[in-house]
Amino acid sequence: MTYRAPVAEMAFTLRHVAGLDRAIAEGLHGDLSDDLVDTILEEAGRFANDVVAPLNKVGDRHGTPLEDGVVTMPPGYREAYRAWTEGGWNALPGPVEYGGQGLPILLNAACIEMWNSAAMAFGLGPLLTAGGVEALSRHGSEELRSRYLEKLVSGEWTATMNLTEPQAGSDLSVMRTRAEPVGDGSYRISGEKIYITWGEHDLTDNIVHLVLARLPDAPPGTRGISLFLVPKVRPDGSRNTLKCAGIEHKLGIHGSPTCTMVYDGATGWLVGEANRGLACMFTMMNNARLGVGLQGVAIAERAYQQALSYARDRRQGRASTAADGASAIIDHPDVQRMLLTMKALTGASRGICYLTAEAIDRAHRAPDEAARRSAQARASLLTPVAKAFSTDIGIEVASLGIQVHGGMGFVEETGAAQHLRDARIAAIYEGTNGIQAIDLVTRKLPLENGAVVRGQIGAMRLVAERVLKEGGPAFGHTAPRLRETIEALDRATSYLLKALGSNRPDEALAGATPYLRLFGLAQGGTCLAQSALAANAASKAGDGDPAHPARIALARFFAENLATASRGLEETVIGGGGFLQDGGLALAG
Amino acid sequence: MTYRAPVAEMAFTLRHVAGLDRAIAEGLHGDLSDDLVDTILEEAGRFANDVVAPLNKVGDRHGTPLEDGVVTMPPGYREAYRAWTEGGWNALPGPVEYGGQGLPILLNAACIEMWNSAAMAFGLGPLLTAGGVEALSRHGSEELRSRYLEKLVSGEWTATMNLTEPQAGSDLSVMRTRAEPVGDGSYRISGEKIYITWGEHDLTDNIVHLVLARLPDAPPGTRGISLFLVPKVRPDGSRNTLKCAGIEHKLGIHGSPTCTMVYDGATGWLVGEANRGLACMFTMMNNARLGVGLQGVAIAERAYQQALSYARDRRQGRASTAADGASAIIDHPDVQRMLLTMKALTGASRGICYLTAEAIDRAHRAPDEAARRSAQARASLLTPVAKAFSTDIGIEVASLGIQVHGGMGFVEETGAAQHLRDARIAAIYEGTNGIQAIDLVTRKLPLENGAVVRGQIGAMRLVAERVLKEGGPAFGHTAPRLRETIEALDRATSYLLKALGSNRPDEALAGATPYLRLFGLAQGGTCLAQSALAANAASKAGDGDPAHPARIALARFFAENLATASRGLEETVIGGGGFLQDGGLALAG
Repeated sequence: MTYRAPVAEMAFTLRHVAGLDRAIAEGLHGDLSDDLVDTILEEAGRFANDVVAPLNKVGDRHGTPLEDGVVTMPPGYREAYRAWTEGGWNALPGPVEYGGQGLPILLNAACIEMWNSAAMAFGLGPLLTAGGVEALSRHGSEELRSRYLEKLVSGEWTATMNLTEPQAGSDLSVMRTRAEPVGDGSYRISGEKIYITWGEHDLTDNIVHLVLARLPDAPPGTRGISLFLVPKVRPDGSRNTLKCAGIEHKLGIHGSPTCTMVYDGATGWLVGEANRGLACMFTMMNNARLGVGLQGVAIAERAYQQALSYARDRRQGRASTAADGASAIIDHPDVQRMLLTMKALTGASRGICYLTAEAIDRAHRAPDEAARRSAQARASLLTPVAKAFSTDIGIEVASLGIQVHGGMGFVEETGAAQHLRDARIAAIYEGTNGIQAIDLVTRKLPLENGAVVRGQIGAMRLVAERVLKEGGPAFGHTAPRLRETIEALDRATSYLLKALGSNRPDEALAGATPYLRLFGLAQGGTCLAQSALAANAASKAGDGDPAHPARIALARFFAENLATASRGLEETVIGGGGFLQDGGLALAG
Repeated sequence: MTYRAPVAEMAFTLRHVAGLDRAIAEGLHGDLSDDLVDTILEEAGRFANDVVAPLNKVGDRHGTPLEDGVVTMPPGYREAYRAWTEGGWNALPGPVEYGGQGLPILLNAACIEMWNSAAMAFGLGPLLTAGGVEALSRHGSEELRSRYLEKLVSGEWTATMNLTEPQAGSDLSVMRTRAEPVGDGSYRISGEKIYITWGEHDLTDNIVHLVLARLPDAPPGTRGISLFLVPKVRPDGSRNTLKCAGIEHKLGIHGSPTCTMVYDGATGWLVGEANRGLACMFTMMNNARLGVGLQGVAIAERAYQQALSYARDRRQGRASTAADGASAIIDHPDVQRMLLTMKALTGASRGICYLTAEAIDRAHRAPDEAARRSAQARASLLTPVAKAFSTDIGIEVASLGIQVHGGMGFVEETGAAQHLRDARIAAIYEGTNGIQAIDLVTRKLPLENGAVVRGQIGAMRLVAERVLKEGGPAFGHTAPRLRETIEALDRATSYLLKALGSNRPDEALAGATPYLRLFGLAQGGTCLAQSALAANAASKAGDGDPAHPARIALARFFAENLATASRGLEETVIGGGGFLQDGGLALAG
């Protein structure tokens, strides 16, 4: 079973959940038409299915061996990457003035999902390049922009993000890499960076490293970190003094080289202001976080497709509904529950990620400042949820995919296990999911004194009310379950805002992870309900597409089976912090 | 960080949760003394720490290559296995008349946990041998018993279970392997079996295969399956006509060979009655299911120890409670939550497994028939929970262990990832966890018209009431949360019994998996509360062991943070079956 991009489902979600239709109608995307959106999705789907998907297993098996500083990418990667850039896929969201197509982040989000479903290790590299484009566009000098942006936009060169050092992971304040001014506007960068994705490879002639480092006179901590552009090949064509000194042997994404990079007085240039590197890096990371969330959706979608296909073919036992002989295992209620859980979590996280992408587009493109600022706040709020919820469920769905396969799932040949191995990193990189939860609670909830999160909860309530009014019997208990979930989120939100306002940050921190999950259930359930409402309207209008009743049934399944966790999560957020008082006493014994 | 057997915690759980003290006081275990129990646990712990634990990574790296039908076990396995059998560890629970020590299954459960924490791939083989001893003791002819039991009890030879064929996994009715009577009391066995754990290896001179096959005149389906003993080496010293034709390349337990076995007219002998093979195999599998549950506990314990150690060493960021400088990450509330979740789930599942083992002991050893039958019913009820809940949490805890490590967790060198890879199989083999849930709901709940499950729920209630009466402020909201969980279980049980009684089996099947989880939370929370009550009593009596307050804090954490999921699970069991009506409609779109 290979991957087939779910183009129709993506298009439906873009339009009816994330609001692409409305954005187009409002003129936010220039002359972008519905037809063009469909054409792009179709073409991207074809490319993902036919060119990228075959790389998935190859990359896992071959890995990316390092010899004498040279990393050899898996067979087929080079050709596929070239076809990918030549097809214009790298340039899709890039700025028009540097050769990009300037298409919405939202449309690109669907494409990112496709590339990463097809082969996550392959799809990962371009995510980093996109982050580099973002950082350079916003903060780079005109010289750097004119020298690098066009080639990064096209994908002729790739970019990396260099943050982590052995002693500096989630806490970048203790970073040690140094940058010495040369006097001609350039710097010499020295230090060691670890976990550098695509830090070295043989797909392109040059690699543009964005490296955090300290200037000699920098203040200590995070306010003394600057961002530098350090190319593998200098503008004069000479090799820079940097190298890949090691490759990690990882659980998954074997087709993506994770490098230890050593900078030995390498030539670099400052990006943005001195000592403001972290801010520059964060603009880069916010989009990257959405990208990683999409990887969670992507791997979940692929694992679901594979499990569904297996469950339709594999015959074992006789279901109560079967006439005679062995049933396909999909006919057993417990297997149905697993598959529905996989599909519902995938759809919910897709909705959240696309919604986030739409907010980012609107933050850039809305005509008036207030709308832009409001959209930016919404994007800020949703980004940690998109990242963490989607990557958590990516792991859960991949693990369920193995379970559906039974013993076959544990055998590597089947391919189901690779999805779990690949999915596992997405909850860690670009800020662990714990960091996302802390970001959501301590930085995003307080935005505009809580008005941003309240506004989002209000929008969820409107959807639940519409389900109550418009939904027929096929919606079952979707409305009350969704409503309960949203109210649980509202109460948990009040509790956390109060804890933060009363200077009891640890209580908020203790509940951050279950709160983020609760947020994901409420928002995800709302997205599926929106999709179900649109499907219901289409069916009523005479559209006989069988996907419509399926959308209603999926929203119902989510509300009745998964969103039900909300009350327990609320209780945990509000009443679970007892362990703070005893200072981890339970861990002492 | 290597493994240290948590001997004191195990001993405490054996005595105060599973009731070993009471069983000894009642004279169920002959002259077994408290001192002897402690000595055995200490010695087993030393052996697990020093001899078995070092095999874990070696086994993962080397795997078990197959060449010309010969499987080479990883370096060190042979010596360790010999030391293990010579130390009498294989013989610990074995029947005295065949050289076993006849010690309680319960005591052995703690030892099984240790071997599997130390190296799951190593611990797995002896679990199969123990199953073979069980089947042969109960169902083998005197000739077979005298020929094979002594060597299986000592571990001089190992045993295997041969059930699965490519087309026959969870559904054994479609099995094809044949057995032709030779006329001299022996049979010729022909067929192909897959997923045969330790089917071939170089640790012992002989391997005793227990193989399900069909006699020529057998009725179709599961009532035409017989069990045969098929040795690798025949009694006359000649090699039997069977071989290992392949080895699976698996996600984990690389140190345990998973073989495709081909029987080509191999000599075998009938075990038990003709066509009753499945019943024989099930006696073997029930104990094996508890053993696999213990693997879940084991891998969770090891993953927890490793994460705890890392979290104490690794410094990142400053916790709000810290005076100055970087804090150990264990001081961050979110990391504490992860570690506490790991420890609480591990302790809860340990309690459930030990409780199950005690019921099995009592079913064999109680002086009167009624007590034996009642204990057997309890063991039957608890076994699927012990297997499925423990192996589910094994995966969850191992995955959390990776998360605590951040990026380091994704790098194989760290060892955290191996635990997840190893843990994943335990939810699949010996009956998938879905099969366990179905077994629990459709076969175990109806036992004695529901009186068995009601009795178990009643026992849980007594513990919750004791917490309410005896528990001081350190117990926080343990009592109400535990009580709610138990009542949710009670209501869900009523619903399922009613569905089964009203001939609506699919409704029960649809809720089976969330019901098993709910059962595990109620029973696991009860076990931790029992441990906390005993700790509380000891503290009050002047015992200053810091493990006592830790036990109370852990029970509290579980009740306030994890058992809170119970209401949602109840709602899902009772209200989640809507997908049955639309026949998987949501999967169609």
